[in-house]
Amino acid sequence: MITIFNTGGTFNKAYDELLGRLVVLNDNKIIKTILKNSFKSNPTPAIKGLIYKDSLDINKQDRKLLLKKIQKCKSKKIIIIHGTDTMNKTAKFLNKYIKNKVIIFVGAMKPFSIEPIEATANLMSAYGFLQTKNKTGVYISMNGLIEKYNKIKKNKTIGVFECRK
Amino acid sequence: MITIFNTGGTFNKAYDELLGRLVVLNDNKIIKTILKNSFKSNPTPAIKGLIYKDSLDINKQDRKLLLKKIQKCKSKKIIIIHGTDTMNKTAKFLNKYIKNKVIIFVGAMKPFSIEPIEATANLMSAYGFLQTKNKTGVYISMNGLIEKYNKIKKNKTIGVFECRK
Amino acid sequence: MITIFNTGGTFNKAYDELLGRLVVLNDNKIIKTILKNSFKSNPTPAIKGLIYKDSLDINKQDRKLLLKKIQKCKSKKIIIIHGTDTMNKTAKFLNKYIKNKVIIFVGAMKPFSIEPIEATANLMSAYGFLQTKNKTGVYISMNGLIEKYNKIKKNKTIGVFECRK
Amino acid sequence: MITIFNTGGTFNKAYDELLGRLVVLNDNKIIKTILKNSFKSNPTPAIKGLIYKDSLDINKQDRKLLLKKIQKCKSKKIIIIHGTDTMNKTAKFLNKYIKNKVIIFVGAMKPFSIEPIEATANLMSAYGFLQTKNKTGVYISMNGLIEKYNKIKKNKTIGVFECRK
Repeated sequence: MITIFNTGGTFNKAYDELLGRLVVLNDNKIIKTILKNSFKSNPTPAIKGLIYKDSLDINKQDRKLLLKKIQKCKSKKIIIIHGTDTMNKTAKFLNKYIKNKVIIFVGAMKPFSIEPIEATANLMSAYGFLQTKNKTGVYISMNGLIEKYNKIKKNKTIGVFECRK
Repeated sequence: MITIFNTGGTFNKAYDELLGRLVVLNDNKIIKTILKNSFKSNPTPAIKGLIYKDSLDINKQDRKLLLKKIQKCKSKKIIIIHGTDTMNKTAKFLNKYIKNKVIIFVGAMKPFSIEPIEATANLMSAYGFLQTKNKTGVYISMNGLIEKYNKIKKNKTIGVFECRK
Repeated sequence: MITIFNTGGTFNKAYDELLGRLVVLNDNKIIKTILKNSFKSNPTPAIKGLIYKDSLDINKQDRKLLLKKIQKCKSKKIIIIHGTDTMNKTAKFLNKYIKNKVIIFVGAMKPFSIEPIEATANLMSAYGFLQTKNKTGVYISMNGLIEKYNKIKKNKTIGVFECRK
Repeated sequence: MITIFNTGGTFNKAYDELLGRLVVLNDNKIIKTILKNSFKSNPTPAIKGLIYKDSLDINKQDRKLLLKKIQKCKSKKIIIIHGTDTMNKTAKFLNKYIKNKVIIFVGAMKPFSIEPIEATANLMSAYGFLQTKNKTGVYISMNGLIEKYNKIKKNKTIGVFECRK
């Protein structure tokens, strides 16, 4: 069984008409929409929501909370929806403490609510990767790359995750 | 390297205003849109288009053509976009002749041009699955299931691929 | 007050996964979606649904039913959602019998469920036209033209309503 | 002939991946998309772009520039795309100086790039209104209301234009 931990990030941003700007939704509506349309009546991964922040605002306490929740979770296969700016930092932190699970970070350069393809692709390629993976470790699934977290990083100049040189 | 063979199917249907109905596009525009939005500037799978039919119209000659093209293709990892109604039949046919590659069939219950999430999810979960797969064989990736072609089938009553009982 | 009579047509077509093709919805869901997003909390036109057919299938009895319903309706301002192929025919029929109301036919070359802009534009330009209109008569609002029903017609070769020459 | 003056506003906002937020586009792409889908091959209103700002940033000089451009424009029928926060202020300013034209302000509570229905509806109901209007004056077309600029205003608490009491 796979569990999706949803921490927020651009993936989960939607337009707030009253504020006149994008906000991180503090629920799992976006992920549920993707799973509903993809899986239809088939069983889906479980979803656990927490933190719900832009990743620039995720702090040490948030990371400790996430660690604790993952350690308590029975799933060996974990997907974490997370903002792209500090994804590598959270991945590095979890990598220190979690040795017996496979964890894949997923985010989006564009909110699903504005452009649904990239977010869906990043999430579902992680899902496909987990179907066969028996190994453990911490990965990132972004823009067609599914690699160990320290092998790829965000190129902020052009807005895409790339292999580290 | 992964090569995507595009044979058409509901995945590639779009509305033709002059005919007043959905037609199978005879190009690879839909797949290119998904890859462009997902991979951005990263290298994508190659795409080869052929047949471009509703799967109910795919005949023996079409299957032989597809077989020949896959045998000639250097990629060991193949994704085939194919209509859902005879996907299992084409999979069974290819399974007889191709032993040294991994092949995954992908389709959609709804055209990408009408509902982009399911088609993107089916394709990209196949893509993720191929990242780690060293085994060979013929698979289907539909509605969150990625299984050997003879393990799942379309439930036409409710419109979803399910595990065979 | 404006009343919208919804008779179906391409405007109201949506994809049926089980049938594998577009069908005319037999409800007013599409129109309600447009009005909800456009008017928000403001009062909207009333909606009355009937017939729900592709306009090629609308027959004499359907037109008589529509006439009767419009005659009974208290609104002096009527919008009729109608398929494009026989829109002029139904308009001509109503024009014979209804003298004290303004009626505007609205359709779409593409289903709202596939491309929402054209259908919304045809409907809402008719709505705007009705804000100032005190005259009576039967009109068509399609593709930026809002004219007496016998002044414009569908060009089936290029898929657009044009002025008659 | 109708001319559309495009000053920017939420109507024209789109997501900038590199900045990670919505920005007012400094071109007329959004309006062209609406007109292209609505009018197809029929002649459309002319578009003139200027200012391209969030309406909170529109200043006295911007308003003078807009006034000058409208006075020079030969069209008697003008649509102005404008942010909603200071729409009434710009309308009041133009109303002092322009007596021989009909002007309609149009905006959107949600960017077209996120939710296309409201923006299309506000613009096209203004367009329909202009088909019959021979009177002069300054109007606002928002959320199903097309009224003199001083008759309606934005309700910021619920995010909709309403009649003034």
